[in-house]
Amino acid sequence: MAQVNPTVGDLDGNSRIVVDYARRAHEAGAHLAVFPELMVTGYPVEDLALRNSFVSASVKAVAALAERLAEEGLGELPVGVGYLSRRVGVGERYGQPAGTPQNAFALLYRGRVEITSAKHHLPNYGVFDEFRNFVPGETLPVVRLHGVDVAFAVCEDLWQGGGPVAAARRARAGLLVTLNASPYERDKDNVRMELCQRRAREMGAAVGYVNMSGGQDELIFDGDSLIVDAEGELIARAPKFEEDLFVTDLALPAADDTAAGQEPRSEEPGEAVDGVRVVRHLHSAEPVASYAPDPPVLTPRADPSTDVGDVYRALVVGVRDYARKNGFGSVALALSGGIDSALATTVAVDALGGDRVHVLLLPSKYSSDHSVSDAEDLVKRQGITARTVAIAPIVAAFEESMPLEGLAAENLQARVRGTLLMGLSNQEGHLVLATGNKSELATGYSTLYGDSVGGFAPIKDCWKSLVWELARWRNAEAERTGAVAPIPENSIAKPPSAELRPGQVDTDSLPDYDLLDGLLDAYIGTDKGMRELAIDGYDPELVQRVIRMVDKAEYKRRQYPPGPKISSRNFGRDRRLPITNRWTPRA
Amino acid sequence: MAQVNPTVGDLDGNSRIVVDYARRAHEAGAHLAVFPELMVTGYPVEDLALRNSFVSASVKAVAALAERLAEEGLGELPVGVGYLSRRVGVGERYGQPAGTPQNAFALLYRGRVEITSAKHHLPNYGVFDEFRNFVPGETLPVVRLHGVDVAFAVCEDLWQGGGPVAAARRARAGLLVTLNASPYERDKDNVRMELCQRRAREMGAAVGYVNMSGGQDELIFDGDSLIVDAEGELIARAPKFEEDLFVTDLALPAADDTAAGQEPRSEEPGEAVDGVRVVRHLHSAEPVASYAPDPPVLTPRADPSTDVGDVYRALVVGVRDYARKNGFGSVALALSGGIDSALATTVAVDALGGDRVHVLLLPSKYSSDHSVSDAEDLVKRQGITARTVAIAPIVAAFEESMPLEGLAAENLQARVRGTLLMGLSNQEGHLVLATGNKSELATGYSTLYGDSVGGFAPIKDCWKSLVWELARWRNAEAERTGAVAPIPENSIAKPPSAELRPGQVDTDSLPDYDLLDGLLDAYIGTDKGMRELAIDGYDPELVQRVIRMVDKAEYKRRQYPPGPKISSRNFGRDRRLPITNRWTPRA
Repeated sequence: MAQVNPTVGDLDGNSRIVVDYARRAHEAGAHLAVFPELMVTGYPVEDLALRNSFVSASVKAVAALAERLAEEGLGELPVGVGYLSRRVGVGERYGQPAGTPQNAFALLYRGRVEITSAKHHLPNYGVFDEFRNFVPGETLPVVRLHGVDVAFAVCEDLWQGGGPVAAARRARAGLLVTLNASPYERDKDNVRMELCQRRAREMGAAVGYVNMSGGQDELIFDGDSLIVDAEGELIARAPKFEEDLFVTDLALPAADDTAAGQEPRSEEPGEAVDGVRVVRHLHSAEPVASYAPDPPVLTPRADPSTDVGDVYRALVVGVRDYARKNGFGSVALALSGGIDSALATTVAVDALGGDRVHVLLLPSKYSSDHSVSDAEDLVKRQGITARTVAIAPIVAAFEESMPLEGLAAENLQARVRGTLLMGLSNQEGHLVLATGNKSELATGYSTLYGDSVGGFAPIKDCWKSLVWELARWRNAEAERTGAVAPIPENSIAKPPSAELRPGQVDTDSLPDYDLLDGLLDAYIGTDKGMRELAIDGYDPELVQRVIRMVDKAEYKRRQYPPGPKISSRNFGRDRRLPITNRWTPRA
Repeated sequence: MAQVNPTVGDLDGNSRIVVDYARRAHEAGAHLAVFPELMVTGYPVEDLALRNSFVSASVKAVAALAERLAEEGLGELPVGVGYLSRRVGVGERYGQPAGTPQNAFALLYRGRVEITSAKHHLPNYGVFDEFRNFVPGETLPVVRLHGVDVAFAVCEDLWQGGGPVAAARRARAGLLVTLNASPYERDKDNVRMELCQRRAREMGAAVGYVNMSGGQDELIFDGDSLIVDAEGELIARAPKFEEDLFVTDLALPAADDTAAGQEPRSEEPGEAVDGVRVVRHLHSAEPVASYAPDPPVLTPRADPSTDVGDVYRALVVGVRDYARKNGFGSVALALSGGIDSALATTVAVDALGGDRVHVLLLPSKYSSDHSVSDAEDLVKRQGITARTVAIAPIVAAFEESMPLEGLAAENLQARVRGTLLMGLSNQEGHLVLATGNKSELATGYSTLYGDSVGGFAPIKDCWKSLVWELARWRNAEAERTGAVAPIPENSIAKPPSAELRPGQVDTDSLPDYDLLDGLLDAYIGTDKGMRELAIDGYDPELVQRVIRMVDKAEYKRRQYPPGPKISSRNFGRDRRLPITNRWTPRA
């Protein structure tokens, strides 16, 4: 199983990854190599699936990949890949995705595409839009491979009952292999493992689960591929957040054609049950000669306390891959001395190295001494390039032309900073990072075109309370390994402030973050209404005030840069809300 | 039929609209009043549908509305409305919309909800996400109303073959009434009429089509409600883009219970065919006493040459309703003397009145004399509030702190303008309008946080060539009615330039707009690949260059403000593309 990191649209580069890992699998003696869902195109393709020329290019690329594997002496290794295809023989129908694209699977062997199928269950919730982009597949391929019946399915097909899983059980497959592009979410890994275990027991078959790794726009794929045996016992598991080739020996049952209730062996498709027909394919009937298996690989699992560590790694992967995949060699951001920009900088340094992180210190007349000194302390600790530009003269030039007061004057300062940062980016080619957190995004506590400028926002899905946790975790990690703590303690400990007017602190406008984040999570994460929030013990007046802020801030969130998603309820793709909305829960 | 303009989330306000129009319908002697799809909640609700407390509020609101109608003496008038409901009796299922919400229909009568049903076909393409937000309905209500069998369906149910339309035919309904929230698109109106005509002939029943009117975020509902008889003849049609109560007398066949093939009359649901069961309901068996019908209303139709006029009206409605529904009494924008800001200003003045449109003239050292004089000319013609702020001193203050060159220096000027505009907005409370056109959005020919700042972008779905057409059309309209042409001829005639460096014109970076817009429309509007575009006669090198620009600019489009959608292929909700995408068509 190759839990690799393709890039959307890079058909050539993705094919090269397949050849590279197939060679390594072959050299390790594998009898089957499997890659993630939509390996050839990358995931998610979104509405690129509706572009006919892109679908054609993917279909051609997978045929060329089969040939290339054979040319490179890898033709005898069956290679399973995900790719974008189309359903043939069905006409255009009103409301059906144009060109009938499919989220497909292909088994490549001896220079040819040996068998194909397509994902049956198409997720269309949260970050997924697959019912919009694909038409469902209707077959489950069951391949007789060295005398073992191996079924292949794609991602959601494992999550839904019925359909392919039921078909694999009916077909008495000895192994179900699923190709996945399953994004990271806090606490999702054991959900996946438990699902594989349950399905294995339901089917009486081993389950192999290969997942993508790496970041693609807002999605972070965390790898964590695994294999469970027919009793549901975990027997092998790959590391998280890394590319990995994961080779495991499995003892699998020989297919038994004489067993009672067995469907006839044939290349002809079976009857459709629950929308799925089994298609059997004889690849090789002879079992492999017996040999001494390698011991299974069980990467030591994170205990629950490393949940925060996983989040941190997800952010690092997110920044690293967004920069790389979009052609940026460096990033720039504004360092205020506060905790958000301190954490974002640290993530960026871990992702790219200190020499590729450029920070601007942009003090105003309201900046406190500790702001500047804390920022300078961080710069020293992490060895990054820093420049200081005092914004007061520029703010003065604006105010001479257009006198502003109150909030307008506060926002002006943030916008002068944003403009300086974008100027540096345009001049030197850095990707600008916006450093807002999820509590700010939720409540609209940010300045449009000010602190919100940038191409990527590393901590936009982290509540403020999690930002502190992450900073403490990162410093503790440094301590554990005997390194210098990257984040100044004072940036963590001091009360948060936007410093846009004298003596301002966040709690002037917002409740304490512990209280706020709990309430926001309950409202946004679980869709609780006023009554339920009151039962949870939140003051109804506070709930009313906070909910209003959240519902009114959608226009700002729409214009915020993308950032790595780490929770099951983000904004944006996860949760699509009208901008104009007069309703907030009242009772 | 009431083609009214609800606001998303304004349950009270929307209910008031129903009472108001029901009263007017009653006073006009109507026997049935029908309102648009999701009347009570507004459309689209998007992921608000997944918020349990919102669904409950909608269900309560529709019951309260029934009572209120009765209290106001309107209980004898059957009133059909769309609302958000939930399917009861089904458990939560993985991948199914949380809380099983439905896009529902209710018939209100004598203070009660008499019968309900829900939309069966859920569109999930283009701007629609309904498969994500709703579970399908499975019944078609056929109500015996004054001895006539009237079936009720919702929007997409009319567009798809099978399902409710087939059920209405089986049930031998005399009239099918559909509730719609069907957004405006160029040339869509006759598609709708022809659909109604075809369905009427298929069913042998009259079809009544009531549509929403007004703007909601990016969607513009154009009304254009209509009725065709059982032969498919158009017999009445409401105006476009306006709220309207549309009362028509129809001669409808008495239900014939003895006819061969008729299903038994019963309150019990019939058998499901194609996923839809007919549910019959006896409201009143007695025909109304015979009376002299009012002549049908046939609002004179636009001939093809007013296509541009319709676009213009859509933009005006978009600005008017976005401002009003989001609580803005006024707008602000930057007037450059060029055609884009001239048109956007004119649209805003037509939407809100000149006294509520505030413009900034923001000349730089590269601004030509005609820029300033053309802008001043427009200000005079339209009687709006204008202020001039020279940006040179502010730009100089920036450059003293951070010297910038080339593109970085050009963008700086645009960002200084954006910051001034936002300052004015924050100070005085105006909604800022961004004035970019679709050709700029497509190619990324704009400055992030510069000319792209704003809350709403009136012409973002208009190609540059259409911008000129709209300006000419608007001036011709003025001439036709003897008014002053609002747009200076020189703004229309001169070559477009961003004026960010000396002597710059758009054609330095872009091909001629006539050529560019044709190519962009073919690529974005029809998903044509390189080969097809070459067959259309476009130079492959140009195609390659333009396509790259389009595919690379997705990150900018994501951060652009919303704006009224006028074509079937916009960016954003219509077309969801990954930011990171290494693929462009090559062959």
